[in-house]
Amino acid sequence: MIMNTPQASQSSPLINRAPGPLKATGRKRVLIIGGGFAGLNAALQLKNTDAIVTIIDRKNHHTFQPLLYQVATATLTPADIAQPIRNIVGQADNIAVLMSEVNGIDSRTNCVHLSDGSLLDYDYLILATGATHSYFGHDEWQPIAPGLKTVEDALKIRRQVFTAFEAAEREVLLRGHHKPLNFIVIGGGPTGVELAGALADSCRLYCKNFRGIDASKSRVLLIEAIPKILAAYPDKLSASALEQLKQIGVEVMLNTQVTAIEPGLVRTNIGDLDATVVLWAAGVKASPLGKMLGGEIDKRGCVMVDANLNPPGKPNVFVCGDLAHFEQDGKQVPGVAQTAIQMGTYAGQQILADMRGQARKPFCYRDKGDMATIGRMKAVANIKWPFKAVITGGPAWFSWLLIHVMFLVGFRNRFVVTLQWLWTFLGHKQGAQLITDKN
Amino acid sequence: MIMNTPQASQSSPLINRAPGPLKATGRKRVLIIGGGFAGLNAALQLKNTDAIVTIIDRKNHHTFQPLLYQVATATLTPADIAQPIRNIVGQADNIAVLMSEVNGIDSRTNCVHLSDGSLLDYDYLILATGATHSYFGHDEWQPIAPGLKTVEDALKIRRQVFTAFEAAEREVLLRGHHKPLNFIVIGGGPTGVELAGALADSCRLYCKNFRGIDASKSRVLLIEAIPKILAAYPDKLSASALEQLKQIGVEVMLNTQVTAIEPGLVRTNIGDLDATVVLWAAGVKASPLGKMLGGEIDKRGCVMVDANLNPPGKPNVFVCGDLAHFEQDGKQVPGVAQTAIQMGTYAGQQILADMRGQARKPFCYRDKGDMATIGRMKAVANIKWPFKAVITGGPAWFSWLLIHVMFLVGFRNRFVVTLQWLWTFLGHKQGAQLITDKN
Repeated sequence: MIMNTPQASQSSPLINRAPGPLKATGRKRVLIIGGGFAGLNAALQLKNTDAIVTIIDRKNHHTFQPLLYQVATATLTPADIAQPIRNIVGQADNIAVLMSEVNGIDSRTNCVHLSDGSLLDYDYLILATGATHSYFGHDEWQPIAPGLKTVEDALKIRRQVFTAFEAAEREVLLRGHHKPLNFIVIGGGPTGVELAGALADSCRLYCKNFRGIDASKSRVLLIEAIPKILAAYPDKLSASALEQLKQIGVEVMLNTQVTAIEPGLVRTNIGDLDATVVLWAAGVKASPLGKMLGGEIDKRGCVMVDANLNPPGKPNVFVCGDLAHFEQDGKQVPGVAQTAIQMGTYAGQQILADMRGQARKPFCYRDKGDMATIGRMKAVANIKWPFKAVITGGPAWFSWLLIHVMFLVGFRNRFVVTLQWLWTFLGHKQGAQLITDKN
Repeated sequence: MIMNTPQASQSSPLINRAPGPLKATGRKRVLIIGGGFAGLNAALQLKNTDAIVTIIDRKNHHTFQPLLYQVATATLTPADIAQPIRNIVGQADNIAVLMSEVNGIDSRTNCVHLSDGSLLDYDYLILATGATHSYFGHDEWQPIAPGLKTVEDALKIRRQVFTAFEAAEREVLLRGHHKPLNFIVIGGGPTGVELAGALADSCRLYCKNFRGIDASKSRVLLIEAIPKILAAYPDKLSASALEQLKQIGVEVMLNTQVTAIEPGLVRTNIGDLDATVVLWAAGVKASPLGKMLGGEIDKRGCVMVDANLNPPGKPNVFVCGDLAHFEQDGKQVPGVAQTAIQMGTYAGQQILADMRGQARKPFCYRDKGDMATIGRMKAVANIKWPFKAVITGGPAWFSWLLIHVMFLVGFRNRFVVTLQWLWTFLGHKQGAQLITDKN
């Protein structure tokens, strides 16, 4: 990436480091904003090619979001599921990583404004900044009901859950009994289901060491506004998930709309619930960077893209992952990891095709299916590729395990996470349940 | 532990859980404040005995402080060196853990005031709340120059170091060059030496992925006020440590007094130093709880104790670890982990002796020696027990490795830390260099 001032373009060490003599006309500058699944997979496609790639992210690390809930429940540690972006792409001479905030995008002049005032020019832009929580206009609920998108979110949830356990144990020692512990998860999509299941499973393990706590006074409630959980799944799997959640003690409240969240209280259309900890898994909205392209966005802020994942009229801009609104067979493809991986890979490939003078192909989403884990030996999976199968319970759980370890980035992570899961599974033991403070 | 209100003493589940019929006259209530090496070892002595033990700590975890600097430099993760106290003592029916702050100690009426207003009675008190950083009256230096006593401190230092690297890499990409990176460690005791050595070693590893950074412009400086580092070690080892630090590129400034610390600047008697990150390892002071006993304290706030580690006239109060001022052969025993372990073990044993009607023995500190690691295959060790030896370099480093793994708490930690060290050592790779924000 070359800054648009003369001295910078002369001395950019990235270009100096690029293999072979620099042909200013032939090499394309690709700017990737966002180091999630989409951005990372786009970069990996362009690794060791003639493109000059820069990845910009606010954080220094890629987060394996599908396992964040296991950090929240202390089965895994942050280092198990997060890796510095520069370590992942570190071997490629043509990829640079920049930890920075983006303040603006000018897609007419092909440049990006960073928060420190610098400007970066690009030939291609891949915008993949994902989504964040949406509180449906009630942003005041956010401090009370954290969502789960970042490592910091996971550690915040962990701190709230364990602090509640510590407080209850203290009550027991000092007063002989404790107030009920109500963990309320709002939203019955995959995140909510996994979080509620993991909490219920973990609470039983925690109680081994929090010996004063009355397990019957520790409840996990899952609140869903519509009549089924996992709405995107076949009815059979939704029903199975509901049944499996009940087996591990999660109380699922269907057809229940949250009307207000206050400290210690969740108000719903069917009554008020005392709440020890409230977790938000009900809605997401797109990253605000989508708007900066100036084109059409949908009601959640996702950028409308054409068959090549370009906003109309901007063939050198790709929007990928949760930020893209792409329709196939008349409906929007889902905002999940596999979509982001496929979109990022596709964008990288199209840039390569351009550079080679080949024609672009339209993006085609291959739906491999969905899976959600519910607890120890409990899961649902709707496998669509490479074969079709609807499985539940143990077999679904093992498939989930296998796929999630396979997709973890880095040998160390795969190895340590497998070890940690075995440790939890065989020994019925949790990982280090550390409460780390704000610091 | 029984709260001094009638309903609590009737229903305390800890007592209900205690094995055998409760004999109100025979069982002694032992209150341990602080879950560090001293408190934990006292508790382990009293495990599964007739004593009713409660450990109080502000944090939910025990921290293996000798390895904190490896969390700061991202070789290890917090979970590798910290374990919830209740998980460590979880198997013992007679030990309860209370996460709470202590506001006051009344050693006349034998009770402790918690921050929530509760009172706890005790028959024996073990006070082992350790030490914290001392800025010698310059508390305004604290936010600029963090010390290293807690997991939060280690993560803060890590954040500062990696944020500095990220900023320098950004400068290179945008402007073609970066300002010098000066990491300044103040204090040439074991903590300062280990931190400076680990930083110098790690910086070389980091530069593999921060490819724009000019290694010659990344310096680690160690400032010491007196003419030698590791003042408590034999001259030969101090000299060897100095030499080994130089070999890995640490610039040691002896006879240098810090006169002021400002953002980006350390002022000394021999001139001002530009500072990217400043780390404080120069002084410690005792925890403020020592004063609450009302007896004599030394100038650092340590409680003067007699041959039984009791403050004079208080045979049911033991002060252990860094908080105790205990003299043997005319000099104060050092504030290190082995002292704390021996003192805690001793206190537990004396309480057992009392309960069995046996006479107490005076405390005798067995100095097993000291060791400090400096870098990969670099260390100094002054072994005094079970044999005497003064060793340096590789052999000292392997001894250090062995001892530190042995003393880590918990099988998982030992295993994962060994794995992590092998990973770093064989592969020249660091652990996950995550920058996690304040949250």
